[in-house]
Amino acid sequence: MTAKTFSETHTIPYYEGNVTNHMTLAMLLNVVILVSEHQNETLGVDHKQLINNYGTGWIVTSYSIKINQMPAIDQTIKLTTRGTSYNKYFAFREFWIEDEAGNELVKIDSIWVLMNEETRKVTTIDSEIIAPYESENVKKVPRLPRPEKIGSDLDFSKKYQVRSNDIDFNGHVNNAHYLDWMVDVLPMDFIIGHTPVQVDIRFENEVKYGSWVESAATQETNDAGMIKTVHCIKSGEDTSAIATIIWKEAE
Amino acid sequence: MTAKTFSETHTIPYYEGNVTNHMTLAMLLNVVILVSEHQNETLGVDHKQLINNYGTGWIVTSYSIKINQMPAIDQTIKLTTRGTSYNKYFAFREFWIEDEAGNELVKIDSIWVLMNEETRKVTTIDSEIIAPYESENVKKVPRLPRPEKIGSDLDFSKKYQVRSNDIDFNGHVNNAHYLDWMVDVLPMDFIIGHTPVQVDIRFENEVKYGSWVESAATQETNDAGMIKTVHCIKSGEDTSAIATIIWKEAE
Repeated sequence: MTAKTFSETHTIPYYEGNVTNHMTLAMLLNVVILVSEHQNETLGVDHKQLINNYGTGWIVTSYSIKINQMPAIDQTIKLTTRGTSYNKYFAFREFWIEDEAGNELVKIDSIWVLMNEETRKVTTIDSEIIAPYESENVKKVPRLPRPEKIGSDLDFSKKYQVRSNDIDFNGHVNNAHYLDWMVDVLPMDFIIGHTPVQVDIRFENEVKYGSWVESAATQETNDAGMIKTVHCIKSGEDTSAIATIIWKEAE
Repeated sequence: MTAKTFSETHTIPYYEGNVTNHMTLAMLLNVVILVSEHQNETLGVDHKQLINNYGTGWIVTSYSIKINQMPAIDQTIKLTTRGTSYNKYFAFREFWIEDEAGNELVKIDSIWVLMNEETRKVTTIDSEIIAPYESENVKKVPRLPRPEKIGSDLDFSKKYQVRSNDIDFNGHVNNAHYLDWMVDVLPMDFIIGHTPVQVDIRFENEVKYGSWVESAATQETNDAGMIKTVHCIKSGEDTSAIATIIWKEAE
């Protein structure tokens, strides 16, 4: 059995991009979450139905993002997703982003858990909720590359206060904002001069409205001679998210 | 002669909304700017052509926004615009946002100037640039309501550092972000409990990447018994933008 796929197209407005004339990493996550929610709707298991019928909601714990080419402002992209496999606690969802000629621009692997909205604790994946995806029931879902732990010798650090607009319709911080904080800590010259080719990000603890987070990063050259930035978002003593980003020089 | 109108539809994704389940004011400006740029493209006078052929670009100096109903997440709206009139230095552009039944949700009046991209100074409006809109050449363009000057007794104040993602493809801060800073300074309970019905905003000085701005606001009840917030964004001693927002209680 192969899981059901769902596709839609999206044309990238200028406000989903930045000074590089390409989509921001945060917006890349926003649009893939949108396509997954559209699939959920067509299958009768969207976030409203989950809340109302089960008191649960999906949350992403980690993404592994491979970028052949960052989608550009005004470009029309085709987004495809499928809920590939799951076990008792974890679901593995894949995304593909293609240009109009069918070239793969971005591939995203993601791991999801179901959270009880009241207790904010992970729950087992109800078979009624997962059945419509025709996902494969597996013993172990794929393990995504774990982002590195940041060293103590920081190259970059900035503080951000969580804003009202960082909070989603569901009352939680939209995960995509972590990537905004992670990228913004890098110098503007670096952002203009480089484009991400691989992003591994893992979310560990929720941050709350009004609280301050520290975005810290180190920069080094990896074994393949590529620039690697290692990121950590902390709220007080809690680690909220960690990420490793590999970059190449912008064309 | 009546100016040419241009329309398109837009379905509001969750990430253009906030915890109120409605579009943010900043995203409202982003989508109307997008529809105006799409009209510019159809008329052969988009931002790339203006830069390449004339070394100029349009910028908005003020908006007057009347909101009957804030567009909701997942709602499909129809956006219509026209470059209604102009004189030597100013162009008056109108926007209408309707729901699918044709009810007017939002009406936006805006004043634009042409800026020389090198000198960052306002230039006269070249007749070649304005001709395609079939705008009316007038002596005086309409004067939009001037936002109030903020008092010295502030009710709310927060500082923000201009982020890399606040900077547009054209290297300037996207005007919409001023509204994010203005709204975010208000308490979350206020944002959840109220919806804007009128926004008058005026942009005075550009802010630069990396600089800190202070968003300050006062709250009072106006003569009609409605809640009014008066806003100011300052960068150092320079006033960057001022606004008056009238609110009603959210339903």
